[in-house]
Parts: sequence; C-alpha cells; structure tokens
Amino acid sequence: MLYPAYSKEPVAKYWMGRMGGGTALVIEARQEAGEPVFLALARAIIAEIERGRLKPGDPLPGTRALAKSLELNRNTVDAAYHELLMQGWLVAEPSRGTFVARDLPDFGSKRQSPVTSAGQGGSPPRFGPATLNLSDGAPDPRLAPTVPLAQALRRALASPAFMAGGGYGDPRGDPLLREALAGYLKDERGLALGPDDILVTRGSQMALFLAAAALARPGAVIAVESPGYSFAWAAFRAAGVRLVGVPVDDGGIDVAALERLAASEPHLHAVYVTPHHQYPTTVTLGAARRLRLLEVARRHRLTIIEDDYDHEYRFDGRPVLPLAARAAEDICVVHLGSLSKLIAPGIRIGYAVAPPTLLRRMADRREALDRQGDLPLERALGELILDGTLKRHARKARRIYQLRRDNAALLLTQHFSTVADFTLPAGGLAIWLRLKAGLSAESWAMNATHLGLSVLPGLRFTLDAARPPEAFRLGFASLDEAELARAIALLKQAGP
Amino acid sequence: MLYPAYSKEPVAKYWMGRMGGGTALVIEARQEAGEPVFLALARAIIAEIERGRLKPGDPLPGTRALAKSLELNRNTVDAAYHELLMQGWLVAEPSRGTFVARDLPDFGSKRQSPVTSAGQGGSPPRFGPATLNLSDGAPDPRLAPTVPLAQALRRALASPAFMAGGGYGDPRGDPLLREALAGYLKDERGLALGPDDILVTRGSQMALFLAAAALARPGAVIAVESPGYSFAWAAFRAAGVRLVGVPVDDGGIDVAALERLAASEPHLHAVYVTPHHQYPTTVTLGAARRLRLLEVARRHRLTIIEDDYDHEYRFDGRPVLPLAARAAEDICVVHLGSLSKLIAPGIRIGYAVAPPTLLRRMADRREALDRQGDLPLERALGELILDGTLKRHARKARRIYQLRRDNAALLLTQHFSTVADFTLPAGGLAIWLRLKAGLSAESWAMNATHLGLSVLPGLRFTLDAARPPEAFRLGFASLDEAELARAIALLKQAGP
Repeated sequence: MLYPAYSKEPVAKYWMGRMGGGTALVIEARQEAGEPVFLALARAIIAEIERGRLKPGDPLPGTRALAKSLELNRNTVDAAYHELLMQGWLVAEPSRGTFVARDLPDFGSKRQSPVTSAGQGGSPPRFGPATLNLSDGAPDPRLAPTVPLAQALRRALASPAFMAGGGYGDPRGDPLLREALAGYLKDERGLALGPDDILVTRGSQMALFLAAAALARPGAVIAVESPGYSFAWAAFRAAGVRLVGVPVDDGGIDVAALERLAASEPHLHAVYVTPHHQYPTTVTLGAARRLRLLEVARRHRLTIIEDDYDHEYRFDGRPVLPLAARAAEDICVVHLGSLSKLIAPGIRIGYAVAPPTLLRRMADRREALDRQGDLPLERALGELILDGTLKRHARKARRIYQLRRDNAALLLTQHFSTVADFTLPAGGLAIWLRLKAGLSAESWAMNATHLGLSVLPGLRFTLDAARPPEAFRLGFASLDEAELARAIALLKQAGP
Repeated sequence: MLYPAYSKEPVAKYWMGRMGGGTALVIEARQEAGEPVFLALARAIIAEIERGRLKPGDPLPGTRALAKSLELNRNTVDAAYHELLMQGWLVAEPSRGTFVARDLPDFGSKRQSPVTSAGQGGSPPRFGPATLNLSDGAPDPRLAPTVPLAQALRRALASPAFMAGGGYGDPRGDPLLREALAGYLKDERGLALGPDDILVTRGSQMALFLAAAALARPGAVIAVESPGYSFAWAAFRAAGVRLVGVPVDDGGIDVAALERLAASEPHLHAVYVTPHHQYPTTVTLGAARRLRLLEVARRHRLTIIEDDYDHEYRFDGRPVLPLAARAAEDICVVHLGSLSKLIAPGIRIGYAVAPPTLLRRMADRREALDRQGDLPLERALGELILDGTLKRHARKARRIYQLRRDNAALLLTQHFSTVADFTLPAGGLAIWLRLKAGLSAESWAMNATHLGLSVLPGLRFTLDAARPPEAFRLGFASLDEAELARAIALLKQAGP
C-alpha cells in the first residue's frame, strides 16, 4: 500500500523514564514504524519542550543517567542528544552539561522534523559562530561562480523568454537548459540524449521523489544501499514505496545479495544505487559488479535509479561512465544528477534522464505538485553551461577539492591511525572514517558537538539502527585549510 | 486508498472510429477513471502520433466527421483538437484544416500531459508569433520589478547567509523571507502570525499538494468548487485524495450544498475555496456565506484550504479579509498565497499559513520531496518585501490592471452584448464571459485557435465534463491595450 502521509502506525514500543537535573518529569518515548529509537527519543524531548514542560535554559540529565532510567543503550541517548544539538533544540555548555536552548523562539530550524532532518547534516548546528561543520560532503559555496550567475540571472529576467506569454513554462524545465544539459551530459558522461530526454527538477531530491512516484504501485519495493542516503529513503517513503536494504562492502553494493532479494521479493520494482562514489562509503562500484547489476536488472526487470550526485569530482583518473551510458535498450535506468553539488547546495537545480514513458509520468507528477521550475534560474544556468562557465568552475573546484582531500587524508592519518582507518576516495567530497572495534561513533560525535564540531556518525546512514556502522562521513570540501585543521583538532579532542 | 501514481483503472468505455483525410486508420480512445472524454480522445491521438501512425504534416479529419465516426458530441472533438492545438501537437491552417505539427521533434512542451496541462492555459499555443493568449488571469511579466529583483539576487548570492555552512537551509524557507511575509500578511490581510507560522513553497501549486498530502488519509475526500481550479484538483489527486465538486453560483460556493455533503460524506476532511475572487467565475464570497462556511467547518471539523491567489488585485473598495483572519481558534484554516501572481508566473514562490502541527507535517513532506527552496531567490524576495519594493509594485500594477479591466469590459460590451454577458469583477485578473443559450464555448475556442487566439472555454474548469459551463475565462492583465484590442477582434471573428 502507499504510505499515508504522516499516519504511521505506532509500534508497541514505549519507554518511560524520569528527566533528572533541574526538571523532574516523566518522559514517554513512542517509537513509530520504521523509526530509529534515537529519533523517537528526540521527538519525545521536542514534544516536552513544545508543551513547555521543558523550558529554555532547563538542564537535561546526563546521557548515562537517562539511558539507565529509560533502559536504553547509552549510544542511543547520545545519538538523540546529538540530533537535538544539531537541530538547535539543545545547547551544550562545555563542562556544565546540556541545556534546552534559550533562543528557541526565533530559531531557524526548530520546526525541522527530527525524522527527515536526520543525517546529511547540511545545516550546521546553530549554537555560536565557533561551530564547525564536517558536512556529509557539501561543496564550498565560497567558490561558486556567483558573479557570472548574478549576471546571467539579470539577463534572464530581461529576456523575451521570461517576458513572453503568461510567463508560464514547460514543466520539464526551460528548453535552453535541457538543451545545454543534453550537450553537457553527452560530453561528460557519454549519455547520448536530446533535450526531450531530460526532466529538470529542484535539486536531485525532487528527482528522487518523482522517480519513485512514477514507479510506485501498491506494495512496490525499492532496494536501497545500506549504509546509504537517508534523504533518498525519505523521498521514496513519501512516494509510498517500501524500502529493503542491500548491504554494501568495499566493492560497493553487494549485487549477489540484490540478486537473491530480486529472486525472493516479487514486489521489487527498482534498485537505488550511487555507483560512482557510494554514499556514504565513497567506494566506486567495480566493472564486474556493474555488468552483473545490469544483468540482474534485465533478468528481473528492475528499474535502476542511478544517483550520480558528484560525477564531476573525480580526482584519480577519469570519471567512470555511468550505468545509464552502458545500459542496453531493454534496461530501464533513471539517471539523476544535480547542479547543487557543482555550484552550491542553496542553488536548487537537479535533473533526471529516463525513458520517454517514465519521464513523461515524472513530468506529469512534477506538474501536479510543482507546475514548473523557476524560469530565470533555469535560463541562467543553461547559459552558464553553454558559455563554458560551469565547466571552468568544475575544473577549478576539482583542483581545490583534490588538495583538500589530500590534506584531510594526511591529517586523519597523523591523528587517528591508532583508532580509525579509511580508504582514500578516488573522488567525491567526503572521507569514510571507520573506527576501530569497541569505539562508538555516536558518543564521539556527541562529544564533538559539545566542543562545537558537527560530524555525522554511521547511525545517520543506516536502515538498521540496531547495528550502525561505527564510522564518520567527513566532508572536507566546504572547509579551507585552516578550518579543516581546527575541525580535525576538535575531532581529536572529542575522541577516545 | 491513496491514488497510485498513474495507474488509474480504465473504466469500461471505448470508442473506435476511422481517422479520415490522408490517413485511414482506426483510432481507439479509452477513457481513464475521472478523465473527461475530450482528454481521452486527445491522448489517443497523441499516441497515434508517437507510434508514427500519424506523421508530421498528416491532415486530420474534420471534427464533424470524426465526431460522427466516434459517435461523440462534436463539442467533445472540438475540445480535443483545441487541447492538441494548445499543446502544439496539431497545427491549424486557416481554410485548409488541421494537421499534425511538422516541428514536433524540437517541440518545447510536446511531452506535456494532456491531463494536467489542461486548463489554466498559461503557456500559449506554439504555432507562430502571431498567437495571442487571453490567459486564465496571468499578470504581465513586462511590469515585473526585474531590475531591483536582479540587484537583490546579486546581493543574496554574495551574502554570508548563502556562503555559510554547507549552504543548506531551512525546509520551511529562508527565515528572512518568512519574517517579511509575516509582516506583509499582517499589514495586508490582517493575519496575526510570526515567521514560524509560515511555510515557503514553490508557487502555490506545491502548497496545494503539501496541504492535501498532510491531510490525506486513505479514503479522504476534499470538497472543491465546480467550476474551479483544475491545477488544484491535479495537486490533490497526486496527493491521493478523492474530490467531490460543490456547485458555485453568483454568490460563490454554495455553502448549503457543502453542508449537505458534509452531513452525508463521512470521509470529507477539507474544503478548497477561492473566496476572494472565485476561480474561474471571479465572484467574491459574501459575508453571510463566509460566516456560514466557518460554522460548517467548525461543526463538521473540516479543514478550510483558502487559496487567496490574487488578494492584492482588488479594484473596487478594500480587499476582503481572508477567512484565515476571521476563523476562531477551533477552526483549521490553511491559507495559501503566491508571489508569482504579484511578480510573474515564472518566479515560483508561494506560501502556506497553517496551525503548527499541520504546518510541520507539510514542512516534513516538503523536505522529503524538495528538501528546501532556492536560497538566493527566497532571500532576494524577502528583501524586496522589507524594502517596500513589492508593495510599490503592487500599487502600480493594480492601477494598470484596473485600466485594463475597464478597457476589456468596454470592448466585451461593445462586441458581445448580443451573444454573451458578464459581471464586472471587483478584482482579479480575468473576466468570466457567459455565452447565451445554444452557443458552444468549445467550438468557439476551437475557431479562435485557428485564428491564432488562445482562449479557455468553461470545459477547462469543470469536474462535470458532461455539462460544462458555456463561458470563457478571459485574462486581460497580461495584454496591453493594443494586444487586447487585437485579441477581442479575433475572438469576435471566431464567434457566431
């Protein structure tokens, strides 16, 4: 069945415990279907704050005490506090403890849902300018070609295309931008296509939702990588799809496991993959597995949703051609990309490439929920692609991010070789740091947050909250050399 | 149950007939659930073109002949041809007839779905610059404050807010814009609210979808005005909601009929209304009906979705305060508005005001399908509100549109008093022209399209395709005096 908006049935799982510290009240956490325990706890604490039973400035109990009282694992409580600190509901005062934030009223993201805002950590914690954010792999907006973009926007606003008719446009996106993207994707990714094979969306998030919505049937299942990209999971669930996780190893998604799933799950419609730089582990899917994945898709008639979110940022050797460029006619691949990673996350332009029938369904659904994109922005970005600005920017950014990757790798080796290890990623804007056995990424992240460093533990990337990968996804690209040095120093200070 | 994306069950309704003219082939039109007959026929013809059985340049049979062969009403065939001409699949050659367009390959909107692109006619027919578009009520983008907007965008792109962190923002929209909108809505519409009571969306289309998605339960029903706004219907259906039409008379929505529906339909959750200027008839809902509507909503626990899409364009007297400003605490009103009508349809910024719980659900869903809005655009528009640019523009535009309304009313009276009548709208950007008995708006619109004038017949605004209102919604605002004179002349030429 499709997923009723926000009417998840509760599962019979409650905890009750006393909030200690200055307040003495009962906290009751109810876990909703498919929701990790730490998020249920975070929701419960938010509810207490909203009801006014926890007031700005009130101290929270230590995580050990609360864990004991709730009979939960301490890592779970750490993760819940960490989430609330990230969202700014709580503030951490070094050596004093954790408190309800005093500035909630004008709090930017206080209404963000703990569920959907979990993970990805694009938005930094909001307590003090001192805060540093080792993001999940965001680019550095300070490098963005904002001057040419502003000029292109000015031209677009004065263009006949904007002034013509009622000003309404094609729900598939500005024809000039689709023309430009078609050429760009042919040159950069070997995709042979024309403007009519492309749907422009608001960032790749909308492309993920539309792909799932266009594929969705009652009971449809999409296989996803786990660990994987939880924002994609949220988009798929919002489209009414059930998710099943497929394990990821250091070769990328386990295609053999996918094949077994396809053989046993009759409702499996599609598989969502990030083959170029697996999210979050950064691994590139090898040639043999790619061929086998295509073969599995053909044999079991699976649609492949290929998220090529940072294709351009390949440092060692040439980028690997996407599955969409290799797939034969009889395999349905939805290829997704974004200009947000290329320019800045705040610039929301993504795109989908898919076979005509599926693309039209996606365009119909897009028109129903969003009518069309923003004409001036689409026109301006089309111009920046056609006049080469975007390619020049990508080349420049790639050089800078490669230096930042190498610098980050050096610092991580220097400071953490005894407690963690990592594989140098061939591309992408993050490093997957695996902790040695016995270390808890949640507790470490929690300590880091107390010091004003936001870092994302493995729990944010898993469907199986019971066995989260003890690792961090460290986005190095948005920090310059000095900022990165400070971030790494704080991470070390927060560590074992 | 929720509405499975694009898997509507066919209803047992087929037509078969011969396409005459140069091609002799069988056309089979299958009507899908809830789909007007003329759209089913349009889909079938598109399919013939896509299959290549109808080739660019091929002539189509006359509407009378095809209607006879399909045993359909000729108005239905006229409406189908009109839709295909609007979308550019077909071209009309005066005195020669109707043909498959020759320039389909690079056709801007050829993949637009006939279903969702029906009505609203923002995009003009694409055959020749000569084409004029009497839209459904779009503003004139040539009046838009594009220079200050371009400057504000440049500032926004250089702002710390954009450069900070990963560049990700609040899914509810830029705090500055929400702050600005809160003040604007307090001054202009008497809504007492703060920034946290507002969700910024991509145009009001997304707000409509999110509102329905947040309210949707399996089997949920939303009552809508009929005639009404078919883009809202598409958004609600995409959110999985069932629609029931409530009649509209010259006092606006028939609240007594709504009350009877509420008493008999246990699954009725909400009612969608356009009380300020009813879409498409432009009527303002009177005070007595407003009070009764609020009372019905309270008694039957209905959420009121109030679409105040062109509040600012009130020509006679002060704008009427929205229902949201009158509703007591115990009535749930979702108030929707848009800056697209204030600036230009190509600028996609809308907003929703709703009670906290509902607003958070909407924000969660928005984050899942679109993560966040475009930061520079949101920041720039926030600035233009705060520095008064938007209010000054609204005042200027209102004066110009009032002149255009009066001019349009004059021309309509001069040319059509024998065949049609209308009530001068107190506000809004369109006139609802009712045809005298026996006249067919579809056939008239079809003739107009042959002459290069796009005009929207009543069929585009009804849930009951069997008894469409014989009327036109004539958007006068996007045309200057000379353009309007030409448009009216063409409309007369196409008429009886």
